[in-house]
Amino acid sequence: MITERLSALRTLMQQHHLNAYIIRGTDPHADEYMADHWYEITFISGFKGETGTVLVTLNEAFLWTDSRYYLQAEKELEGTGISLMRESEIDTPTIPQWLAQNLHSGDTVGINPEMFTVSGYNDLRKELSTAGLGIYSIDLIRPLWINRPPIPQNPLYQYSETFAGESATAKIQRIREEMNRKHCDTLLISALDETAWLLNVRGSDIAFNPVAIAYTVLRTDSCHLFIDPQKLTAEAQAYLLSIGVTTHPYDGIFAFLQSLPAESRVLLDGSRVNQALYEALPADCKKTDAQSPVLLDKSKKTPIELEGERIAMRKDAVALTRFFKWLEEWAATNGVTNSQGTPMTEYDLMQQLHHFRAEQENFIEESFETIAGYAANGAIVHYEATADDCAVIHPTGMLLLDSGGQYLDGTTDITRTICFDEPTAQMKRDYTLVLKGHIALARAKFIRGTRGNQLDVLAHQFMWQDGIHYGHGTGHGVGHFLCCHEGPQNIRTDNNPAPLYLGNICSDEPGIYRAGEYGIRIENLITVIPAEKTDFGEFYQFETLTLCYYDTHLIDMTMMTPEEISWINAYHQRVAREICPLLTPDEARWLQNKCQPI
Amino acid sequence: MITERLSALRTLMQQHHLNAYIIRGTDPHADEYMADHWYEITFISGFKGETGTVLVTLNEAFLWTDSRYYLQAEKELEGTGISLMRESEIDTPTIPQWLAQNLHSGDTVGINPEMFTVSGYNDLRKELSTAGLGIYSIDLIRPLWINRPPIPQNPLYQYSETFAGESATAKIQRIREEMNRKHCDTLLISALDETAWLLNVRGSDIAFNPVAIAYTVLRTDSCHLFIDPQKLTAEAQAYLLSIGVTTHPYDGIFAFLQSLPAESRVLLDGSRVNQALYEALPADCKKTDAQSPVLLDKSKKTPIELEGERIAMRKDAVALTRFFKWLEEWAATNGVTNSQGTPMTEYDLMQQLHHFRAEQENFIEESFETIAGYAANGAIVHYEATADDCAVIHPTGMLLLDSGGQYLDGTTDITRTICFDEPTAQMKRDYTLVLKGHIALARAKFIRGTRGNQLDVLAHQFMWQDGIHYGHGTGHGVGHFLCCHEGPQNIRTDNNPAPLYLGNICSDEPGIYRAGEYGIRIENLITVIPAEKTDFGEFYQFETLTLCYYDTHLIDMTMMTPEEISWINAYHQRVAREICPLLTPDEARWLQNKCQPI
Repeated sequence: MITERLSALRTLMQQHHLNAYIIRGTDPHADEYMADHWYEITFISGFKGETGTVLVTLNEAFLWTDSRYYLQAEKELEGTGISLMRESEIDTPTIPQWLAQNLHSGDTVGINPEMFTVSGYNDLRKELSTAGLGIYSIDLIRPLWINRPPIPQNPLYQYSETFAGESATAKIQRIREEMNRKHCDTLLISALDETAWLLNVRGSDIAFNPVAIAYTVLRTDSCHLFIDPQKLTAEAQAYLLSIGVTTHPYDGIFAFLQSLPAESRVLLDGSRVNQALYEALPADCKKTDAQSPVLLDKSKKTPIELEGERIAMRKDAVALTRFFKWLEEWAATNGVTNSQGTPMTEYDLMQQLHHFRAEQENFIEESFETIAGYAANGAIVHYEATADDCAVIHPTGMLLLDSGGQYLDGTTDITRTICFDEPTAQMKRDYTLVLKGHIALARAKFIRGTRGNQLDVLAHQFMWQDGIHYGHGTGHGVGHFLCCHEGPQNIRTDNNPAPLYLGNICSDEPGIYRAGEYGIRIENLITVIPAEKTDFGEFYQFETLTLCYYDTHLIDMTMMTPEEISWINAYHQRVAREICPLLTPDEARWLQNKCQPI
Repeated sequence: MITERLSALRTLMQQHHLNAYIIRGTDPHADEYMADHWYEITFISGFKGETGTVLVTLNEAFLWTDSRYYLQAEKELEGTGISLMRESEIDTPTIPQWLAQNLHSGDTVGINPEMFTVSGYNDLRKELSTAGLGIYSIDLIRPLWINRPPIPQNPLYQYSETFAGESATAKIQRIREEMNRKHCDTLLISALDETAWLLNVRGSDIAFNPVAIAYTVLRTDSCHLFIDPQKLTAEAQAYLLSIGVTTHPYDGIFAFLQSLPAESRVLLDGSRVNQALYEALPADCKKTDAQSPVLLDKSKKTPIELEGERIAMRKDAVALTRFFKWLEEWAATNGVTNSQGTPMTEYDLMQQLHHFRAEQENFIEESFETIAGYAANGAIVHYEATADDCAVIHPTGMLLLDSGGQYLDGTTDITRTICFDEPTAQMKRDYTLVLKGHIALARAKFIRGTRGNQLDVLAHQFMWQDGIHYGHGTGHGVGHFLCCHEGPQNIRTDNNPAPLYLGNICSDEPGIYRAGEYGIRIENLITVIPAEKTDFGEFYQFETLTLCYYDTHLIDMTMMTPEEISWINAYHQRVAREICPLLTPDEARWLQNKCQPI
């Protein structure tokens, strides 16, 4: 089947004089999670992994993917004639490098411009051009893909101002002022969470992200939402009308952009807007490629949004406390089976945790796929247990649990690592190094204008002294009942010019991963709040939002400073004070015990 | 006189149809220190400050300078008709902003392209173009400036391989390989220290920097030095010949560049090369604007260069120890006068310190103007005492002393702050906050690839907790018997993509400045050395190069951790061990006492 599809694609490529065609594992909105509709790489290659790019030439085909997917790719590509390119390996050329080496000057590479951001497209175009290769925008998958899964058609709904904290009208006005300052009259919004935030609407087209698939074009005197009409209930339509939004069919965006007045001054964020939209803009309209003002505004949570986050955190803490109590009781019975009498697995834990979260009011769904990494699986950073493929849990050793919930009140994301039995000295040392870094970041005070990459070292510093490192980010931005990963701010080693603003929410999640042994990660969400204004400037600090106890029997007390011990004790006191009243007396006693001073 | 010059300039401007002309306080090599020959802003405005830009229109004239020079500028501009633009103030427009607001679309602004880097020129051109203004390259000062001070004509000399650690031939070969990797056949070197490093030559055309005014053009099969022939002794000529360098007159660079083969592929660093050179290049030759490979290579000190630095540090420590002993003895006599019987001043201290440094073998000159900031003057970050304008010292309160030497062995830069009498609690707290940051940076261990801006927070963290901040960089790169400030690495809050490489030398100099009271800064030079390779990666750490005791009676011991105390004690032990043998018995006893464990 794959070979037939490849062959059909090659026929189309020849008709269009293309020497290669690139199929990307992405969608027109640069989403983290994609609807099945856009799994073009699965259609063309059979590969079902979440990250990959397929390159098809007239007589060869390749899949680029990273080390997480090597095993899966080898299995799924078998018999397709598609070769695996292991992109995590140093010697593997990038796609432009491969093309430069294997195509001839004057050859042309086809791409679907909906699947490239403007920046991604320009980078590719430049690299190809250096090698004398051309680039041609054309969608060759659409004509081949019969029975393509439709774009999800779930209803759009108004997100109550009680939760959103501000009317869409007020947000739109502020963004228009920002457009005006940038001398633009049109803002092109491609990111789904930006549309959701700006218009105070939500949806359920995408897993884990409560958004609807849509584009927005905000103009100085009008606002246009491009969305499949089926998603619009009478209620939603009435709401959109009330805030002055005109609706158009989803695909109508192209014709709309083409018919913009030639003198339009269009603001678009080239790192998020796709190239097909860019190509639809009138050639002579003025295009300003700059960060979307919605992105920045959305990242600065209002007091009401933060209050919602605090409510969500308390619910999340109740669910997690119940979960860990349940787990401890299971371990204490020396049980190895679950309630069905089969061996307890990582997948069972995911189900049980979902059960406790789902009991909470206004819970909608997980904010990402729960990572329950038992023992060595905890060391696989993007580990995902499934019903069919997951480890059996024994009441010994370490468990890493990274999970989060979407509540109407807000989004949560928390990691705790526990040890079922007595930890080894190395486990305690590793756990304490991670905890010290986690605390150092949480306690940081910093001058206004500080970027996350300046603070990252606070989380890395102690383990670096031991020659230990983790390669993932220390902190990602978090949305308010929106994406669990959002920008522009983050706390990473990488360069990122975005400073931390008041109201930003970030994770604080250092970790240590010992391949084949265990993984440790400790994660809270923190938000930027004012600290003080002095003669020297304005200072910010973090408020920790997450409210769940740490496994203190993993702490090596000899490594802790008095300040760190005070911090832990004050945190545990706060957890007990805020969460115990929400629990049954039995649960409250259990949590109180976990929150004893160290 | 100034008004006549302005009027003559305006006549020339009118002849060339220019509506405005910009005169910058810089030179064609983007040097930190300039020869008098290039003080065009002093010629045209009378202003003698080190930083400033003059803008002349057909009926107005302005000087932009920063807050350090406001008082001086007001005085020096009196009667010239030139208005002061206070560029440190938020409401002051930048020059392009002023031009956009005050000129008319279609007007043209003249500049001397020798005084703009390629990047600086392009930024200006873009800003002017947005406002509909043109830019025109022409030097209008040269025809006006009669009796202009000549370009310095001091002799160039070979810098011995014993000190340089590597032959020029070997360096040239390595740079050619790097040019080749970048597909370039010509490298244009404008920075004076790059020429000095590459060819193993030094000069004394510029204050504090042992370099000669020259350009270098390195080609795949030839190397060309553009320098005034008067500077070339027979010895220097023979040396240059021996390493395959062809010499040309300094101004010959323009004709040389114009006659480069059209297919030349020229590598140039647009942030350092001036626009006049760029304009001289054949229009159709391929220009690659990228960081100079010499800059990076120069920053990675070889073991022999580092050994030289360590020798220089010991000499510097002897000089500083003698100085502080001398100062303490003066204070102990309750003396208020110097050896001439007049009141002791900051300038006397500068002279005395120079005396002790000059006694050391291979001492050439200071590496920058000594900052001796007594009491409130210590809080002025770029304070410079002169014979005519400096404070009288009393043996009470705080003294900040920032100084450095150029030795043939290497370059030093050190700051110590002392208190003559019993410090207040605030002085001790401030000093200890600075010291803790200084130690945290010195003790850092970090994974390869880490940038200085990631480590900066280590120096700021403790004072930030107290709501205190300093705005200057924490660390600048330092050359090897070259510029005291060099790149590409540094340790600052600003974004800078340059990672720290093995052999980089940086300063570590946090500070606290209380306006009207005192300034505290503690500075050592540190170099990047290997720490360890583990399963997690390769780790680096710093070796402290500077060897001078700290004033321990300023330390608030209650704020110090055991690790910090151990670090101080180990450092003092090392200082005593390495420096005492180089002192007289009396001096050694004195230093030993300063190095007592705390």
